[in-house]
Amino acid sequence: MSVLEQRWNELADIKDELAERDWFLGTSGNLSIKVNDEPLTFLVTASGKDKRKRTDEDFLLVDGEGRPLQETNLRASAETLIHCEVYRLTNAGCCLHVHTVDNNVISELYASNGSITLKGQELIKAFGIWEENGEITIPIVENYADISRLAQECGKVIKPETKAVLIRNHGLTVWGKNGFEAKKHLEALEFIFSYHLKIKLASQLSVLQKSSY
Amino acid sequence: MSVLEQRWNELADIKDELAERDWFLGTSGNLSIKVNDEPLTFLVTASGKDKRKRTDEDFLLVDGEGRPLQETNLRASAETLIHCEVYRLTNAGCCLHVHTVDNNVISELYASNGSITLKGQELIKAFGIWEENGEITIPIVENYADISRLAQECGKVIKPETKAVLIRNHGLTVWGKNGFEAKKHLEALEFIFSYHLKIKLASQLSVLQKSSY
Amino acid sequence: MSVLEQRWNELADIKDELAERDWFLGTSGNLSIKVNDEPLTFLVTASGKDKRKRTDEDFLLVDGEGRPLQETNLRASAETLIHCEVYRLTNAGCCLHVHTVDNNVISELYASNGSITLKGQELIKAFGIWEENGEITIPIVENYADISRLAQECGKVIKPETKAVLIRNHGLTVWGKNGFEAKKHLEALEFIFSYHLKIKLASQLSVLQKSSY
Amino acid sequence: MSVLEQRWNELADIKDELAERDWFLGTSGNLSIKVNDEPLTFLVTASGKDKRKRTDEDFLLVDGEGRPLQETNLRASAETLIHCEVYRLTNAGCCLHVHTVDNNVISELYASNGSITLKGQELIKAFGIWEENGEITIPIVENYADISRLAQECGKVIKPETKAVLIRNHGLTVWGKNGFEAKKHLEALEFIFSYHLKIKLASQLSVLQKSSY
Repeated sequence: MSVLEQRWNELADIKDELAERDWFLGTSGNLSIKVNDEPLTFLVTASGKDKRKRTDEDFLLVDGEGRPLQETNLRASAETLIHCEVYRLTNAGCCLHVHTVDNNVISELYASNGSITLKGQELIKAFGIWEENGEITIPIVENYADISRLAQECGKVIKPETKAVLIRNHGLTVWGKNGFEAKKHLEALEFIFSYHLKIKLASQLSVLQKSSY
Repeated sequence: MSVLEQRWNELADIKDELAERDWFLGTSGNLSIKVNDEPLTFLVTASGKDKRKRTDEDFLLVDGEGRPLQETNLRASAETLIHCEVYRLTNAGCCLHVHTVDNNVISELYASNGSITLKGQELIKAFGIWEENGEITIPIVENYADISRLAQECGKVIKPETKAVLIRNHGLTVWGKNGFEAKKHLEALEFIFSYHLKIKLASQLSVLQKSSY
Repeated sequence: MSVLEQRWNELADIKDELAERDWFLGTSGNLSIKVNDEPLTFLVTASGKDKRKRTDEDFLLVDGEGRPLQETNLRASAETLIHCEVYRLTNAGCCLHVHTVDNNVISELYASNGSITLKGQELIKAFGIWEENGEITIPIVENYADISRLAQECGKVIKPETKAVLIRNHGLTVWGKNGFEAKKHLEALEFIFSYHLKIKLASQLSVLQKSSY
Repeated sequence: MSVLEQRWNELADIKDELAERDWFLGTSGNLSIKVNDEPLTFLVTASGKDKRKRTDEDFLLVDGEGRPLQETNLRASAETLIHCEVYRLTNAGCCLHVHTVDNNVISELYASNGSITLKGQELIKAFGIWEENGEITIPIVENYADISRLAQECGKVIKPETKAVLIRNHGLTVWGKNGFEAKKHLEALEFIFSYHLKIKLASQLSVLQKSSY
């Protein structure tokens, strides 16, 4: 099996698994995996497909500017330019963009801060952070309708050590050195986001209850 | 494969997928897909079936007034008349009516406004609305027990550009030019409804907390 | 296929479907289906099994007092006596007892009222109640550790027209004239319970917000 | 089939089922099953695997100090030492460590008490506690980054009758005399935790509402 086929299957497996969780509602989301480093080429999801189906037209091969490398009637996901930024600025080998209710709620609640810092949660170790009070900061960017502008804004906040970016009321873009790590990072963040929202709700109610006496 | 068979399979696939998400609890919900334009004929779910099973009796072919086109012992869904209104007033090719907890909660919370306007959410693009602050308004009608009356009320609020109607404490009726688009619209709305409820809860608690000091 | 086999398969299919939804956590829940009327015999789940597996030992045949009709090393569910009461007092053909978080929360919130009345929800039609403001009342009984006592208390609140009983912090017992109807009733109630809790939460927050100004 | 193979399959089945529920997000969680008593040997999950896949390298056999019994390139889960403590201090035959949002929220809300006591819930019977107002107490320990320290702290709170330990903002460790019972205990606790959080939320809102008049 060629490297291209291996990467294709790796990404298709991830797509199947995330689709089963209903993480691509309304044909949302886009995924990519690096095939070659110099020059950069990567497979990215074709636009507007139902990601619950597995077909030969799910992905197309693009270059570092997101342009198709073969003649094709497929269009790369509109947000391919964001994947380009991720590969340009980090050592990512795979990049996943997913809309969930909880990552959207987090992106809105903390948008005015420009980021959210997560700490005190075991699953932060999924990012290779092993200290007792390890923390991770996820930048949040505004959701510009113009994709070049949006990609540019993402590019501004991505440092080599960044693991993910939230786009306000839009979704999470997260990556890892390969498909396995990217999925691990995605799952860990979704877990921590859900945890964060639930504990925040419980804490707010406790504070209210105390102040009401 | 005839057009009829193609449409049958398209609708049956959608039914399977929504059933897997438990979006037809208590035999609720009904689905239809257009087969012919002039005169209008469409396939619609037979009444009272368990939608988790796929059988040869899941759908029947009806005319623009919802009357069966063949002799059959199947009854069309009680709410077929609402589908008739949708096909009469829009260019819909497929129409889905689904009960979820969240679409019911939204329908009740905003019933007195007669509609809900959703904005500032990336998934609004699923409706082909690409502006930065694009919005979509879903009318809400009262849940008359008399179906002709209910269909009439739905007819009153459906404009050519309308994409969906909420029936109070009952469910969502949503459509698209074909099965693929109808399902995309349904999923996008369910996502936005769930997001809306969760962000509203968080905002209300924040306001309360501030006012309690 | 004998009537016994037909009923066995019907109940096994229901068990499979509910197990897939994780409605039998911790080996909870018990199911039964009537096989004969005079004298009453019914199949009931054997005690302590993992209901996600389908085996030849899932059910055993018992009489109207819940006693096994064949020599067997299986024990009938501890709560078989409650099923006996349901068959004695109603025309049920199938009876399902299921623990969900939401039915437990409802049972606790309304326990001091002795019942909960549900209205203004389309899915009440699943119970054959077609009026515009149809309602249904579910009695709630205390959860006596002594099963004979518990069955007796259930018996006291079950009228011929009763469709379900809630046991406080324990679960829902619901029935129908056959397996299909019992499952329809169960799903409709679970939907309405979840809806009820979510709309109650939203309403309470709105009231609080108004009173805080 | 040897005892080792039987135990392997038992644990692999449990792993499959919990993975299907997404209870191992971000490669979290670890599982073990006892193979021999004197000297103690048990199978434990290999570190860093995707638990949704079933392979020949999912588990490895270790001794009472958590050291591999065969030459292997697999590493035992980092938290194997906690499993050693469970086998040393109780008659457990199987031990499951799982991260869920709800068990994490509970562990944080009650951390300052050092434990949570659950009562008034039918599913407490899953632990063989049959009294009418039976209760169960789950100790909560701090989440030390140093695993030996963490295992030691778990060891301090585990009595022969303890059924589970919560680690703060980390997860639940629960056991039973065999795989079947361990899974039953796990499911019962997760149900009770979710119930507890939802009833607590409802109660807090009711109290607030009353105090706001």
